[in-house]
Amino acid sequence: MGINLSNLLNSRSKNQKISNFQDLDHLDGVSVSTTSANLYNSKRDDLVLFYFRAGANYASVYTQSKIVSENIKWNLKIKNKKIKALLVNTKNANVFNDNGFMDLKLLADDLSEQLTELQIKDEDKPEKIKQKDILFASTGTIGEKFPTKKIIASIPDLIKQIKYTQNKYIWIKAAMGIMTTDLQPKIAMEECKIGNKSVKIYGIAKGSGMIFPNMATTLGFIFTDAAISSSVLKKLLKKNIANTFNAITCDGDTSTNDMVSIFATGEANNKEINNINSKKLKEFDNSLNIVLLNLAKRVAADGEGASKFITVNLLNCKTEENAKKISFSIANSNLVKTAIAGEDPNWGRIIMAIGKSNVNINRNKISIKFGSLKIVEKGKIFNFYNEDEVAQYMKNEKIDITVDLNAGKKNFTVYTMDLTKKYVDINADYRS
Amino acid sequence: MGINLSNLLNSRSKNQKISNFQDLDHLDGVSVSTTSANLYNSKRDDLVLFYFRAGANYASVYTQSKIVSENIKWNLKIKNKKIKALLVNTKNANVFNDNGFMDLKLLADDLSEQLTELQIKDEDKPEKIKQKDILFASTGTIGEKFPTKKIIASIPDLIKQIKYTQNKYIWIKAAMGIMTTDLQPKIAMEECKIGNKSVKIYGIAKGSGMIFPNMATTLGFIFTDAAISSSVLKKLLKKNIANTFNAITCDGDTSTNDMVSIFATGEANNKEINNINSKKLKEFDNSLNIVLLNLAKRVAADGEGASKFITVNLLNCKTEENAKKISFSIANSNLVKTAIAGEDPNWGRIIMAIGKSNVNINRNKISIKFGSLKIVEKGKIFNFYNEDEVAQYMKNEKIDITVDLNAGKKNFTVYTMDLTKKYVDINADYRS
Repeated sequence: MGINLSNLLNSRSKNQKISNFQDLDHLDGVSVSTTSANLYNSKRDDLVLFYFRAGANYASVYTQSKIVSENIKWNLKIKNKKIKALLVNTKNANVFNDNGFMDLKLLADDLSEQLTELQIKDEDKPEKIKQKDILFASTGTIGEKFPTKKIIASIPDLIKQIKYTQNKYIWIKAAMGIMTTDLQPKIAMEECKIGNKSVKIYGIAKGSGMIFPNMATTLGFIFTDAAISSSVLKKLLKKNIANTFNAITCDGDTSTNDMVSIFATGEANNKEINNINSKKLKEFDNSLNIVLLNLAKRVAADGEGASKFITVNLLNCKTEENAKKISFSIANSNLVKTAIAGEDPNWGRIIMAIGKSNVNINRNKISIKFGSLKIVEKGKIFNFYNEDEVAQYMKNEKIDITVDLNAGKKNFTVYTMDLTKKYVDINADYRS
Repeated sequence: MGINLSNLLNSRSKNQKISNFQDLDHLDGVSVSTTSANLYNSKRDDLVLFYFRAGANYASVYTQSKIVSENIKWNLKIKNKKIKALLVNTKNANVFNDNGFMDLKLLADDLSEQLTELQIKDEDKPEKIKQKDILFASTGTIGEKFPTKKIIASIPDLIKQIKYTQNKYIWIKAAMGIMTTDLQPKIAMEECKIGNKSVKIYGIAKGSGMIFPNMATTLGFIFTDAAISSSVLKKLLKKNIANTFNAITCDGDTSTNDMVSIFATGEANNKEINNINSKKLKEFDNSLNIVLLNLAKRVAADGEGASKFITVNLLNCKTEENAKKISFSIANSNLVKTAIAGEDPNWGRIIMAIGKSNVNINRNKISIKFGSLKIVEKGKIFNFYNEDEVAQYMKNEKIDITVDLNAGKKNFTVYTMDLTKKYVDINADYRS
């Protein structure tokens, strides 16, 4: 089930060496362990621990919702430059419940103590790990009591499973351990150079409902062995989130828990980059964008109930803000999304969505294409418009909609999926 | 199918004399005729003509979409104080097509000529009817060629059927003649006094997709025999649209064709009201609001695929704008609407929708009720919250959600319906 992604990932760099899950391997400085705390009353993994034995520089972007989860409040209070661990749980969003923040304190207390013991056992120069060395990410149902006891009971198992060398299976397990209604694990990877050092960028993410990013969205975690300062990581992440995670929507609903983080262990031993304008960063910057975009597309393609992956290109607008408003107005329209689910080339609904976006447009300059098929050209129905041909195009799994306003030079692209009966099924189910 | 409206209309005035379709009768000065121009390739009525033999004062509000239909452009050019006719067609929205405006000129030419002949035949002091005495309303698919020939061919039949006395059946026929995917005709009526004269207010409307009003929405036509100037009608309509038609949403999509108009024939012979502050208007103002609200609720209740009618009350906000933003954020959320379709009391999604509304709120003051059942009280889950009880409540056809911010004194109420598989069915159908 779900959408076949093989055609979607045409944004990969040409000379990359890492091209699929088979190439995933060790990323120096990161340990990953997963377990089931029985949060779903099943044996599926629901807890994932990322442990940085020598610490990692890091940066995060969070949801812009006015109601945020307790773990985001926790993370926002942490001012360390380096972090030691990230604990992710699914099933419970830790939002709008009693004691959610105190519960995290209990968890952090326990986890930091056990990680300190591990340091004493395994490191030449063990460090005491403190509560403020730990970040949390949560995803799941809002308003339910946080399952602190179950999670604390599972920490020894997480610690026991820590290995200092990873393989592809542990990355896939981690990507599966953070899933909720996702059908497929989401992993992306790139390799690039900083100076003469090869560095890796691995990323995992989860969707797949309540996805309408606003600054960051959903959960996404990027790991690199590059040495880059936290402040540069922050700038890189903010810059690259804009046209990747902040360019997708599944259902127009923004989560209380959105969080994308990047962690840099420095084990690649390049000279640490402390300046965002460093020329050495160019390749990394580009590769990071590819990893983020790849993950973001995977989130959109695996949106709840998706049968088609939709790309909305807005071209030649006066401002990027305008391009963004119109492309999201189209991508969030239930009428556009149901028409595409029904393989109906009902382009009139694109016109409706342009109109309701509140952007001033010149109707006589609008051009619209579905794939490479022209439908509207400068405000008029294209002379050779052939509805049968477009109807045939709508049977594809990947639908590209291009709207050209011919009004300026700014573009924006949004990724989304169709609205199917399956979406209603998934979300009308008692407490999905 | 659809929602039973009997419980919804509790906003009717207490001492009203007109309470249901049985009471509809003649409204002096308005003639209604309907016919089939075969626009649906079936015999259903698709053209409705409202003819004011002695003219009518009038006012309209239109969609705020940046792309509007040709008939709205036509209407906006008309500056007459009195109007003679309104022609409504379904099936074709007359938007984004070639020659749509010229087609209306042809239509207006033909219709005005035939109405002039009727005046000569029937009136003591016949008036020449001009193109600018005619308004148009259209609803249907965007981007298709306007069926001018079919409509012109049907005008003689419309004229032939004009009678100067109406009965309930012709009003029901008119309400059915303007329907698209609506399941039920939408009619509302009130009677009230202006000074010592009794006046009637009748209204008809249609939904039921692309409904997220912005100023006006959908098609709604109000008729009264009161004598009220056009400028006062305009003020009354703008004022009363705000908490009626502009307080409903079905799918968050705003039409290019939204239009609500009021026509006043003056045949009740009260002294014409020329001042919006006239005390004589008070009862009329109130009755007009009841008619508009009644119609608006009928549009929401008959929203595409609806199985439940949802009222979202936002109480005690700092500003009405805030109350409106949050209530629409809840009412437009696919996740809230699918949970309600699934009879799942997943109030966490209400929290999500409050959070994403971009209004600053104090989480510790929020209270939430479903019906009269308390769920959240001042930021905490209610002590006696009983999920089974709330789950039982969700089985009702009418769901009331009340959110109290405890932050000010402003309220807003929005009406909507749930999101069902049937909505997807209707809209994924090739060219609904």
